[in-house]
Amino acid sequence: MDILIYSPDGKTAPYETSLAEHLREANIRGWQPGDAAPADYLVLWKPNAEVLLPRARLKAIFNLGAGVDGVLGTRGEGAHHLPPGVPLVRLEDAGMADQMAQYVSAAALRYFRRLDVFDAQQAQGQWKFQKPNRLTDFPVAVLGYGTLGAHVAKALKAFGFPVRAWRRSQRGEGMHDSGIELHHGDAGFDACVSGARILVNLLPLTPQTENVLNAHLFAKLAQGAFLINVARGAHLVEDDLLAALDSGQIAGATLDVFRTEPLPADHPFWRAPRVTITPHISALTLRDETVAQIAGKIAALERGEAITGIVDPTRGY
Amino acid sequence: MDILIYSPDGKTAPYETSLAEHLREANIRGWQPGDAAPADYLVLWKPNAEVLLPRARLKAIFNLGAGVDGVLGTRGEGAHHLPPGVPLVRLEDAGMADQMAQYVSAAALRYFRRLDVFDAQQAQGQWKFQKPNRLTDFPVAVLGYGTLGAHVAKALKAFGFPVRAWRRSQRGEGMHDSGIELHHGDAGFDACVSGARILVNLLPLTPQTENVLNAHLFAKLAQGAFLINVARGAHLVEDDLLAALDSGQIAGATLDVFRTEPLPADHPFWRAPRVTITPHISALTLRDETVAQIAGKIAALERGEAITGIVDPTRGY
Repeated sequence: MDILIYSPDGKTAPYETSLAEHLREANIRGWQPGDAAPADYLVLWKPNAEVLLPRARLKAIFNLGAGVDGVLGTRGEGAHHLPPGVPLVRLEDAGMADQMAQYVSAAALRYFRRLDVFDAQQAQGQWKFQKPNRLTDFPVAVLGYGTLGAHVAKALKAFGFPVRAWRRSQRGEGMHDSGIELHHGDAGFDACVSGARILVNLLPLTPQTENVLNAHLFAKLAQGAFLINVARGAHLVEDDLLAALDSGQIAGATLDVFRTEPLPADHPFWRAPRVTITPHISALTLRDETVAQIAGKIAALERGEAITGIVDPTRGY
Repeated sequence: MDILIYSPDGKTAPYETSLAEHLREANIRGWQPGDAAPADYLVLWKPNAEVLLPRARLKAIFNLGAGVDGVLGTRGEGAHHLPPGVPLVRLEDAGMADQMAQYVSAAALRYFRRLDVFDAQQAQGQWKFQKPNRLTDFPVAVLGYGTLGAHVAKALKAFGFPVRAWRRSQRGEGMHDSGIELHHGDAGFDACVSGARILVNLLPLTPQTENVLNAHLFAKLAQGAFLINVARGAHLVEDDLLAALDSGQIAGATLDVFRTEPLPADHPFWRAPRVTITPHISALTLRDETVAQIAGKIAALERGEAITGIVDPTRGY
């Protein structure tokens, strides 16, 4: 069995070593320019077109992340580059759900508990009570209710927040899941976001979801809502956020993803009041967990068993 | 039925109004100097000695908080002021468990996810990856495993932290509770704190626990541990913390409680690097929830039923 690994930075060696420990019979190689040789499996992140050219024996392509927009393209324009009939498999959880819950909870709790205000007071040597926010005034809307979205929603629910979540299509679950109010489809979107004090974006990036975080949506939230974007930069209309921060419709934002990464030095987000920036670290691909998951799926496919996480390229996730 | 309410700031009116809505037959009054008249129930916070003088008909004393050190005194010296044979009842949860879980999780996640480092980078316009901490390297030790401690421990466990907890006496639970490793008594203390990266203090303040957060304990934690004190200022030997911060044994601390509150303007904590200060807001007494709980317990006592939350004055909680 041949496994070919690609990463835009060329640093595939640690993955080769780690995969080899799980799949001792496999021949594992990192991609080099010109490599069009057969491979049973591709393991990759943000591939160039050459890597994806049809390749003899190819049985599956494993994406080293949950979002496959790096393969399919932001607008799905990359879908036709995929070798026909070869399943594209995305990473599921692999430690990312815990990381997302940690990051989003830290951001949401900091805003809800006014810890940024207390930090500013401390800098002034000021001991001053602040009227506490109440949970009943803080409905949270989580956009995206896959593995990550559901885990994040449940973490926030456990703190007492009223939590609503939205996913495109219903999957057998009812109107509630673990106390979370579920909404579906275009018809359910407004009910999910209307009046929310915290908006968390965990949607896949698809032609349908690009620019979903815009002035039209912000206007539906409660006055002084807080935005947490941990999905993709292209979900957010940046000028709309800056305007909503100016008007006070959005009170603050924690952003981990941006249209251009690294965020350019002259970007207004760097110095926008009440905007917190992190360098795309909310949920890192953890090598051990990722390799174990992919190796397990390769072994399952070799035994002729079904696997989960296969992407529908027409849907985009 | 007569209910007498006392607060050191004299602001008892909102509690009188709110209690009256639950107990329509009761005569409810705020304490005024010289009031030695009969009362069936006392509802109070940090009482003076006069309020606690023996009073005709007194059936129970309700404390407007979880910690009763304001009644019993830090070293238990107030216990003999209690009218003999009258139960002292402490507040249980009433919204405090959620608040504690929120506050402690926000502090723990901020340190674990290095969000303070990213904040500092943002201030410099710096987009820079930081090697992530791993959950397996972050055992959390929670001191105190009553209603609040157990809720906090479970919240941290849900994020993937390995969590250990300590309480003085075993209460029927085994060595584990919801995946939390439990330790008991003097013999179990070291096993709970040894090598912990985050230490959370939620102990009641008693003669046994005063000064428990000291250099001797800090030395048992992992190098670079983080301290979160949300119980009482008198648990902490302040000079020991400053020394441990200097040496790096303690990497940082989030402190909500202090020996003197408000924290004096010249106190070194205000400007100590990596110390976060909040003005005793981690878990506020929420009036609606508190009054509902106390009114429910008064009604139960009037029906001759048993109630929970009765303090053992010799134990201190």
